[in-house]
Amino acid sequence: MEKENSNNNWKNKVHEIIYEADTPMGKWFDIILIILIFVSVIIIMLESVKSIDAVHHDLLFTLEWIITIFFTIEYIARIISIKKPLKYVFSFYGIVDLLSTIPLYISYIFVGSQVLLAIRAFRLLRVFRILKLVQFLGEASQLKNALKASRAKITVFLFAVLIISVILGTLMYIIEGDEAGFTSIPTSIYWTIVTLTTVGYGDIAPITPQGQLIATIVMLVGYGVIAVPTGIVTVEFGKQKSGNSQTSAQEGSYVHVNTQACPTCSSEGHRDDATHCYNCGSILNNE
Amino acid sequence: MEKENSNNNWKNKVHEIIYEADTPMGKWFDIILIILIFVSVIIIMLESVKSIDAVHHDLLFTLEWIITIFFTIEYIARIISIKKPLKYVFSFYGIVDLLSTIPLYISYIFVGSQVLLAIRAFRLLRVFRILKLVQFLGEASQLKNALKASRAKITVFLFAVLIISVILGTLMYIIEGDEAGFTSIPTSIYWTIVTLTTVGYGDIAPITPQGQLIATIVMLVGYGVIAVPTGIVTVEFGKQKSGNSQTSAQEGSYVHVNTQACPTCSSEGHRDDATHCYNCGSILNNE
Amino acid sequence: MEKENSNNNWKNKVHEIIYEADTPMGKWFDIILIILIFVSVIIIMLESVKSIDAVHHDLLFTLEWIITIFFTIEYIARIISIKKPLKYVFSFYGIVDLLSTIPLYISYIFVGSQVLLAIRAFRLLRVFRILKLVQFLGEASQLKNALKASRAKITVFLFAVLIISVILGTLMYIIEGDEAGFTSIPTSIYWTIVTLTTVGYGDIAPITPQGQLIATIVMLVGYGVIAVPTGIVTVEFGKQKSGNSQTSAQEGSYVHVNTQACPTCSSEGHRDDATHCYNCGSILNNE
Amino acid sequence: MEKENSNNNWKNKVHEIIYEADTPMGKWFDIILIILIFVSVIIIMLESVKSIDAVHHDLLFTLEWIITIFFTIEYIARIISIKKPLKYVFSFYGIVDLLSTIPLYISYIFVGSQVLLAIRAFRLLRVFRILKLVQFLGEASQLKNALKASRAKITVFLFAVLIISVILGTLMYIIEGDEAGFTSIPTSIYWTIVTLTTVGYGDIAPITPQGQLIATIVMLVGYGVIAVPTGIVTVEFGKQKSGNSQTSAQEGSYVHVNTQACPTCSSEGHRDDATHCYNCGSILNNE
Repeated sequence: MEKENSNNNWKNKVHEIIYEADTPMGKWFDIILIILIFVSVIIIMLESVKSIDAVHHDLLFTLEWIITIFFTIEYIARIISIKKPLKYVFSFYGIVDLLSTIPLYISYIFVGSQVLLAIRAFRLLRVFRILKLVQFLGEASQLKNALKASRAKITVFLFAVLIISVILGTLMYIIEGDEAGFTSIPTSIYWTIVTLTTVGYGDIAPITPQGQLIATIVMLVGYGVIAVPTGIVTVEFGKQKSGNSQTSAQEGSYVHVNTQACPTCSSEGHRDDATHCYNCGSILNNE
Repeated sequence: MEKENSNNNWKNKVHEIIYEADTPMGKWFDIILIILIFVSVIIIMLESVKSIDAVHHDLLFTLEWIITIFFTIEYIARIISIKKPLKYVFSFYGIVDLLSTIPLYISYIFVGSQVLLAIRAFRLLRVFRILKLVQFLGEASQLKNALKASRAKITVFLFAVLIISVILGTLMYIIEGDEAGFTSIPTSIYWTIVTLTTVGYGDIAPITPQGQLIATIVMLVGYGVIAVPTGIVTVEFGKQKSGNSQTSAQEGSYVHVNTQACPTCSSEGHRDDATHCYNCGSILNNE
Repeated sequence: MEKENSNNNWKNKVHEIIYEADTPMGKWFDIILIILIFVSVIIIMLESVKSIDAVHHDLLFTLEWIITIFFTIEYIARIISIKKPLKYVFSFYGIVDLLSTIPLYISYIFVGSQVLLAIRAFRLLRVFRILKLVQFLGEASQLKNALKASRAKITVFLFAVLIISVILGTLMYIIEGDEAGFTSIPTSIYWTIVTLTTVGYGDIAPITPQGQLIATIVMLVGYGVIAVPTGIVTVEFGKQKSGNSQTSAQEGSYVHVNTQACPTCSSEGHRDDATHCYNCGSILNNE
Repeated sequence: MEKENSNNNWKNKVHEIIYEADTPMGKWFDIILIILIFVSVIIIMLESVKSIDAVHHDLLFTLEWIITIFFTIEYIARIISIKKPLKYVFSFYGIVDLLSTIPLYISYIFVGSQVLLAIRAFRLLRVFRILKLVQFLGEASQLKNALKASRAKITVFLFAVLIISVILGTLMYIIEGDEAGFTSIPTSIYWTIVTLTTVGYGDIAPITPQGQLIATIVMLVGYGVIAVPTGIVTVEFGKQKSGNSQTSAQEGSYVHVNTQACPTCSSEGHRDDATHCYNCGSILNNE
């Protein structure tokens, strides 16, 4: 009993450090983790630059192994310290954590799998999780809400853009020949989207007068069309704002929440004085 | 009399399946139709890719014939089951349906007419009709209303952009020579629109200092000018929104409409409990 | 006295036809004028296309002479029929009318001056004047007002963009060498504006890592910066709208104006029942 | 005592001319300074154009020396006439003034340092300071406030864009090979930002179908994403406006401020009738 308790205490300690950011240790862990993620991404970048890789290959390789071992320990610690490990393992972050740790190991078995290390870039998304630390969170969630609210409209819009692109792309394929680069309908559709979005690489460009006329129409359509997502998001932002000020006018319905995460179900946003998880009811480790 | 009735029943049944989406059969028909349209468009795309066409030509050709035969049957069924066939035949969708079915047949008479199959891309627009099925419709109609309301302003704007393009394009033709690609005034106008809309292919680019100076002015004008359609649409969206919330504040003026289409005049948006078409008064087939 | 009167009547008649659009004759004159301006612009365009000019040179040349003679007659009629000819001659439209008529004549004296015909493109602006005919005018003036109101802010903004471009362009000139196309500071500034406005021709593009890093910063700055004119114009549009609806809520302060122009001072916007010009008090020719 | 006073008077006079714009002399000094800054920037630009430098090198060199000497005198005068010279020396403008004056001198010691003259472009920013003269200031500060208010949101947004670019760039590096120009992950990230911001140089462009598919997704994401900063700034502008009109509705809380700068602490915005600096309390030189 005594032992189990101390075992639990040890697990709680690790959970607090890895999953939360209330204690000095937890904050330090998060900061070190972010730095290591950034360093690991930069190492992968540098390895892909031939001239740098030729000179510093050994250094980069060693650093990568050190970081991979740290990530391995972190991954194991995350599984051990949580009460429902499977929930973490099959969550988005759990899968990304695994996929960004494993490639270096299996690169000894399957040649070329090291390229999977690029998945590590996804770990950068964890930064947003850790951003709980800073006050930017409110801004980020406002952005997220505005985008979420305009999701349906933007889906309809993107679908309409795609259909227009298919029609105009097919038209350009018929008008322009192979010389101008319109070698197939998919390529023509690619060109249409490049033009509609005003990116305009210039790798494919119409050369016949008729093709240039249609291109002009595509551009002017794109010009009008670019206004649509902007209009949607702007109006949504406007509502967001006034919505917020309205809410803040309501009486005392806000309490301060901290960065504690439930060791059982990982839900977040607990009150400072909470002793039980609001979601699953299990006991939180307050100290 | 008995026979005519059963004949009518049979026609009604077909009409219900093809034009409406209330019954399970009707829903399935719509879903299969959308899938076939997508498949047929993808087949035409793949045929245009030389490397794929070289290998799988026979498979693609067979699939195209199967889909064309289905489309032919569908086209005939649409004409038979409706009470005023001419209205359908000369409607936008009727013409598109015909033009996207016929090319394969006449390709035996006129070589090259197969390229007309590209018109099939227009059938994708039918997706919007069938979208009645899903809740996105409200969003789509909001988008449509906002664009409709700003139509006049955008027309004036596009006309102004065109005149500016003609003037600046002519100016660039005089300043830049043939070397830079400004070979004629229409080409220069094409370049001006490519630049104004910030597409910027780079196939034609000024090389003299004076030309680059004017190009800079064109870009900065385009920069300011791109704000105009955005401003128009955004304000229109804002009005749309508030307009909607105002309407929804009015009392019970809404009834639920279904996807039934009148077999006589094809008008849509009938009440669930309607027995006669609100437009032409003919009897609807409720079951 | 009689003669002078008839002379006056004749002048009034011409003035009414050329400057106004109330009478059937006036409307026809405006429509023919617009068509001729369009035709003359298209002729100049076609002459600049070598392949077309080689075949149809004589036809185009003859048409150009016919139109030039019509424009000459129109120019003289405008001077004769107005009471203060100098005001017209030195107005913007007066100068454009002269410059777009004269080149063909002096092309016999100065070789190459025919290129000045391109100035004829400016006559297209007259379309906006004649647009008084249609209901788009209200939309156009709303656009104009919104742009006018945001003029000061957009000037400050453009000036800031220019200074940023000079600084960043100079920086790129130092970092990138001649190879990448950054041959001089003005060229680098040209590149910076091409990038900031997201046009991106690609005729000049950074090749060193440091250059690409700065280019990335320029693009992200441009990304944020493009929001500014849009924001300005959108807010201005919003105000415009609400301003208008406010005005229309006021009582009967609107009268219908027609397209009559004062034969003395050319001011427009007279009431239907006006007998004297609201601006200079001279008698209008109502019939 | 008498002498010190006259010395002080002399210093005050210089301070008034250089730092303020109330007196005719002060206004003239500011105007001449702006002109000289512009001229010096244009000289540096022209020197970088090989063809111009080859012909006019001596003229440009002489002009540069004359302006440098003027700037040197100005820099010394600024230090002498202010009561706390160190504050100026280590301010942003102080450093820019020094760095834009010194290169020509040290170019005799270190070859190539003349290139530092490009820093002189930063002096153009002084134009904004001198803009106090004109009424554009209000507009500029409104722009500044709107951008400042949306700073936090734009930071979050830019950070999200960067992470997306890293992930998509890495993906493109894996899919596309060296042939298409995706030679390393940093280069691929550069391409991703070039595409996301719709700049689209075309120096690097995908050639494989899979790469073009991902490029299409990047463009459509960029299309939706460009709406975000626009939405943020527009809403912020809207608030700015209504905020302003609200303030101006308040009672007489505005006094006219002039362009005087405190000779001790350089703070600006003093009331016309002020005799002491509102910031440090030292006496202002009113005359």
